[in-house]
Amino acid sequence: MEILQQEPIAALATAPGIGAIAVIRVSGDHAIEITNRLFRGKDLSRQASHTVHFGTIRDAQNTIIDEVLVSLFRSPASFTKEDVVEISCHGSDYVIRQILRLLLKEGVRMAQPGEFTQRAFLNGQFDLVQAEAVADLIAADSEATHRAALTQLRGGFSKQLKALRQQLIEFAALIELELDFGEEDVEFAQRDDLRRLVWSIQRVLRPLIESFAVGNAIKQGVATVLAGKPNAGKSTLLNALLNEEKAIVSDIPGTTRDVIEDELFIDGIRFRLIDTAGLREATDTIEAIGVERTRQQLDKAAIIVYLFDVAEATPAEISAVEADLKQRSVPYVLVANKMDKLSAEKLNEWQRTFGENLVPIQANTGKNLTEMTQRLTGFVKANTVPGCTVVTNLRHYEHLTQTDAALARVLDGLDAGTTQDWLAIDLRDALRHLGELTGEITTDDLLATIFSKFCIGK
Amino acid sequence: MEILQQEPIAALATAPGIGAIAVIRVSGDHAIEITNRLFRGKDLSRQASHTVHFGTIRDAQNTIIDEVLVSLFRSPASFTKEDVVEISCHGSDYVIRQILRLLLKEGVRMAQPGEFTQRAFLNGQFDLVQAEAVADLIAADSEATHRAALTQLRGGFSKQLKALRQQLIEFAALIELELDFGEEDVEFAQRDDLRRLVWSIQRVLRPLIESFAVGNAIKQGVATVLAGKPNAGKSTLLNALLNEEKAIVSDIPGTTRDVIEDELFIDGIRFRLIDTAGLREATDTIEAIGVERTRQQLDKAAIIVYLFDVAEATPAEISAVEADLKQRSVPYVLVANKMDKLSAEKLNEWQRTFGENLVPIQANTGKNLTEMTQRLTGFVKANTVPGCTVVTNLRHYEHLTQTDAALARVLDGLDAGTTQDWLAIDLRDALRHLGELTGEITTDDLLATIFSKFCIGK
Repeated sequence: MEILQQEPIAALATAPGIGAIAVIRVSGDHAIEITNRLFRGKDLSRQASHTVHFGTIRDAQNTIIDEVLVSLFRSPASFTKEDVVEISCHGSDYVIRQILRLLLKEGVRMAQPGEFTQRAFLNGQFDLVQAEAVADLIAADSEATHRAALTQLRGGFSKQLKALRQQLIEFAALIELELDFGEEDVEFAQRDDLRRLVWSIQRVLRPLIESFAVGNAIKQGVATVLAGKPNAGKSTLLNALLNEEKAIVSDIPGTTRDVIEDELFIDGIRFRLIDTAGLREATDTIEAIGVERTRQQLDKAAIIVYLFDVAEATPAEISAVEADLKQRSVPYVLVANKMDKLSAEKLNEWQRTFGENLVPIQANTGKNLTEMTQRLTGFVKANTVPGCTVVTNLRHYEHLTQTDAALARVLDGLDAGTTQDWLAIDLRDALRHLGELTGEITTDDLLATIFSKFCIGK
Repeated sequence: MEILQQEPIAALATAPGIGAIAVIRVSGDHAIEITNRLFRGKDLSRQASHTVHFGTIRDAQNTIIDEVLVSLFRSPASFTKEDVVEISCHGSDYVIRQILRLLLKEGVRMAQPGEFTQRAFLNGQFDLVQAEAVADLIAADSEATHRAALTQLRGGFSKQLKALRQQLIEFAALIELELDFGEEDVEFAQRDDLRRLVWSIQRVLRPLIESFAVGNAIKQGVATVLAGKPNAGKSTLLNALLNEEKAIVSDIPGTTRDVIEDELFIDGIRFRLIDTAGLREATDTIEAIGVERTRQQLDKAAIIVYLFDVAEATPAEISAVEADLKQRSVPYVLVANKMDKLSAEKLNEWQRTFGENLVPIQANTGKNLTEMTQRLTGFVKANTVPGCTVVTNLRHYEHLTQTDAALARVLDGLDAGTTQDWLAIDLRDALRHLGELTGEITTDDLLATIFSKFCIGK
């Protein structure tokens, strides 16, 4: 693939705000020569790729703007495959603005959001799914989202799909050829082979499509409703869970982030605790679940945690709750708080009644908390196959389902013995969706939509 | 100077928050070998200084944390003069945390604020004034603060002072020698040479000391009070000034910053408009300047802008205002707004009466606004000599004035013919302050105080 070196673009590549250093990225035609005109130090145009050079950036009046380190990446050995320069300057807004200004004066244009990644994609550095994973990777804030993004960045499902698409293209070409022969009723494409190919594509597509439910949950956070009577100990439980997390988040100075209350990271998975303010007020009896507001909260839940005071409740009461919960198609766990109030014998009785669905805990001491959180992460992990790609992107999901639907129509057509023209339409449809998924087919609109969601500098 | 490679430290060197990339800096003993243990790609321990390498960072389970670029700087060719590694990873909080965690597991310690710069100072990369300029440079948000910091970073006044200090040390040694001879009344140190040396030091010190007033104003922003009756057009003027600035600030996407209302950058100088809320409400007559609250505002002013409606005011009224303003030892400018309402003849009359102190403008059209702002920047520039170092740091100012005071006592002593022991005390005092200024004399407390103000990662 020939590298197209487009007009040079520049942007701040590091987060805005005050830091020790900031990195300005320049990519495109003559990026090195242009930077060299502002740089005093070694002659950058004569330096090798992947080398770093100390010097100063100066304006037209020879005034020093900053002392910098300049890293050179020569085409095609760079992120965009174009010539790339990374200028590492002091992390001051003023310095960043001045250096960008000088670059603009030299004919460099400010990069659009995602434009570096878009160029990397256009130059064949990676396919569209991988390009999109770059943005996901940056936004990743949990182990699960990070793993999903990184798997996709490193090839993920798109490599596999590309190979299958290639085979499908060959079949489609044969079918189209049959069309050319019109009335002659020839069959170049072996129908059985086509059928087998469609099946093998579906075997790849289906798990990916199914993974979206959990992939989406991973990306957005798993919507978890904590229900129960007010005296059940919800806030104690919440604090116990949140405190643990806060400790984990804040143990590395300089990287602490605003802890959003009611958001929990357990075992690398984000649990988004649905604001149960309504629940907390309204549900002093389980019947209050019927209240409209509460019902809406529960409808959003991917997991429901029902907490109760095991010393106050009766098995009959909790059975009624469980019957309610079972009507919903989401996993739930019955959490028997204040287990210390009961004898071991009594507890055993509860566990015999409710089995796996019940976890006894003591929220105020944190006893058995891990058992409870493992139950939560278990629900999520049950839906993922370790090492397999998880689809987290709605665009991917839509193309995957539409490919699957088109292929299903192909199979139906084969079964019904439809004519080549109908088969050809469905095959083209499947190929188009597969192609758009991996970016082998793109439109300007599609690229604009995808890359505009990126941050500037990527 | 021998380089001391201390225990390895690490920190995020770029601004926290989401960016395309983030840079983690590692410095100290075995920094390269330690990074190499987490890195898959080339063997970093065998690569040259100032080279960049693509690869992955992996944890103990060989799970990929991120694809990274690693830059190597071998001692002493690095910022800290120790071995330094800069890991350029995707700018996600999660990735940053994980990489820092892996480094900590390998025995690297989280860096304290300013610790990289402190090591650079301890290893003789630069003196204390230069080290402090690093922090100032990062915080610089205007051309003037940036220029002051960069001049200091590149040696500034400390080089000159160091040479003079050396000469003073020699004199002090001779005086101490005289003391050793006690009663013998010998004079090794030529008193006239000493006098000349003190003078030459003072010729360097005095402009620096005087530059602090403006240096401090540059750093903190020039406190500017905008006074006048409510109908004079203050908010129109303010908007006209701020709009112009907002356009300048926001013309480069990705680097816009929150514009603090009532803060203006004119010609690279920051003007801090003192909150004149009190003034705006209270001063519907100039007599209200006497109001306590208003008086306090004016007391803080470095510059006073008195705005009035030239069609409504009388020269007698404005003369009274000017008489008030003259009693304050700060520059002021009388701004005659709504100049379009008057004939050229009438305006000339006003200008004859008040001369240079009056600038006619038309705030709503922006007419003559530049003349007014040039007046403001003129006040600041009048106090700076182009190309000269400006002292912006209170610590420097204090040491400079104390050196100056000690030297004045030396001169007094010489004039009065005091004994060697008194001269020796004053010389030692002067030397100590000069030494602490440039960091040739340091204490742990001093260093801790200075570097704790730095951001982490610097």
